[in-house]
Amino acid sequence: MRALPREQFIYLGDTGRYPYGSKSAETVSRYSIENTEFLLDKGVKLLVVACNTMSSVALDAIAERAAMPVVGVIDPGAQAAARSTRNRRVGVIGTEATVASGAYTRALRRFAPDVEIYTRACPLFVPLAEEGWVDNDIARATARLYLGSLRQSGIDTLILGCTHYPLLHQVIGEVMGPKVRLVDSAASTARTTCEVLAREGLARSRGAGSVSFFVTDVPDRFIKVGQRFLGEQVQSAVRIER
Amino acid sequence: MRALPREQFIYLGDTGRYPYGSKSAETVSRYSIENTEFLLDKGVKLLVVACNTMSSVALDAIAERAAMPVVGVIDPGAQAAARSTRNRRVGVIGTEATVASGAYTRALRRFAPDVEIYTRACPLFVPLAEEGWVDNDIARATARLYLGSLRQSGIDTLILGCTHYPLLHQVIGEVMGPKVRLVDSAASTARTTCEVLAREGLARSRGAGSVSFFVTDVPDRFIKVGQRFLGEQVQSAVRIER
Repeated sequence: MRALPREQFIYLGDTGRYPYGSKSAETVSRYSIENTEFLLDKGVKLLVVACNTMSSVALDAIAERAAMPVVGVIDPGAQAAARSTRNRRVGVIGTEATVASGAYTRALRRFAPDVEIYTRACPLFVPLAEEGWVDNDIARATARLYLGSLRQSGIDTLILGCTHYPLLHQVIGEVMGPKVRLVDSAASTARTTCEVLAREGLARSRGAGSVSFFVTDVPDRFIKVGQRFLGEQVQSAVRIER
Repeated sequence: MRALPREQFIYLGDTGRYPYGSKSAETVSRYSIENTEFLLDKGVKLLVVACNTMSSVALDAIAERAAMPVVGVIDPGAQAAARSTRNRRVGVIGTEATVASGAYTRALRRFAPDVEIYTRACPLFVPLAEEGWVDNDIARATARLYLGSLRQSGIDTLILGCTHYPLLHQVIGEVMGPKVRLVDSAASTARTTCEVLAREGLARSRGAGSVSFFVTDVPDRFIKVGQRFLGEQVQSAVRIER
């Protein structure tokens, strides 16, 4: 929204079936295709798959169904990490499904074949972020337990491979130390989206931007949790029935 | 299974859409009715709604659709707590949806109108139990944070109002102290189920028992997590497609 202030965003949160991170690739793919169909019906000109788990396991299936450009979060994150690392050691943290898929590993090997890759699933990070426990002793102890071995691996770059993890930026940074750069896919995905829109001549050059939130459960909890991420911009959301 | 060794159990775990505890009453009710229809198709003679969240928000909707007896977990748990308390102060912990529903409060008032009731949602307990972190420093710190005020309230009985919480029995007991009795709905629900089967003449008096597990996502993770609860009895499960 900051990178593309003139665009009209349609956001779908599958709150009735989330979280995806502990579900199988098959189930996440099935849900992803249903979500895609909803957004295609809305007539979108470009589709951002803004969930790391969905991007990891279902990007090809989504792109097959979409006639417009599709931007995932894995390639932009992997590319940013490949550019960032000096000692050629990169870590990846994400949900169980994202780590099991190997999607970041494949993308990193494409952008930087010589890089050593260390991965770790951190399932508790999502419920901690949703509970708002991002800077207390429990968040800190959890980060130490998950990241202890990663810290020993000598990486200089760590991909935060899940939408929720940037909320834990502070404690993850404390545990990893000041020499490890944390890469958040969000910024590089926004950059890629700008580039694709410009290249395809799809960017909107005038008018005010807007955002509409759609969810698959009642909006209350989405608004509460969404404000942790986007602040006051999440004022209301519309439930879609399935 | 221990209480009714001759019965044939059909278990459905909605792993493709769980956890229910952070979802709305409307969404949980819709899923509950779909789950019920699957079990009715299997020709069950009695239905146990073995999830506290489902029991809290959807028991009436389920009972309306079922011609056979339906046993929830709220009444048996509340009844056991009403019998257990000496000082007439009872605590209830559960998911956000269970606590918000007020189902335990209503049931306790029915069985013991004079009881003071204290409730607290503990959302992190489910992911902790699934991660297997039931007896480490993080589980202990989380229990202290959630249960600190409950401990001050002077309760002598605490209902573990979620299927996952008995796995954290040890740390919950440590935080609450030896004078607080922990009530697990499972044992009293099994007792109620025996009574209903006997009363209705539905109990099976001979033959060997059995159990079949059905899930709505691929079985791998269910088998892994299920073994934390039931040990080696969870060897395989069948996925149902929807």
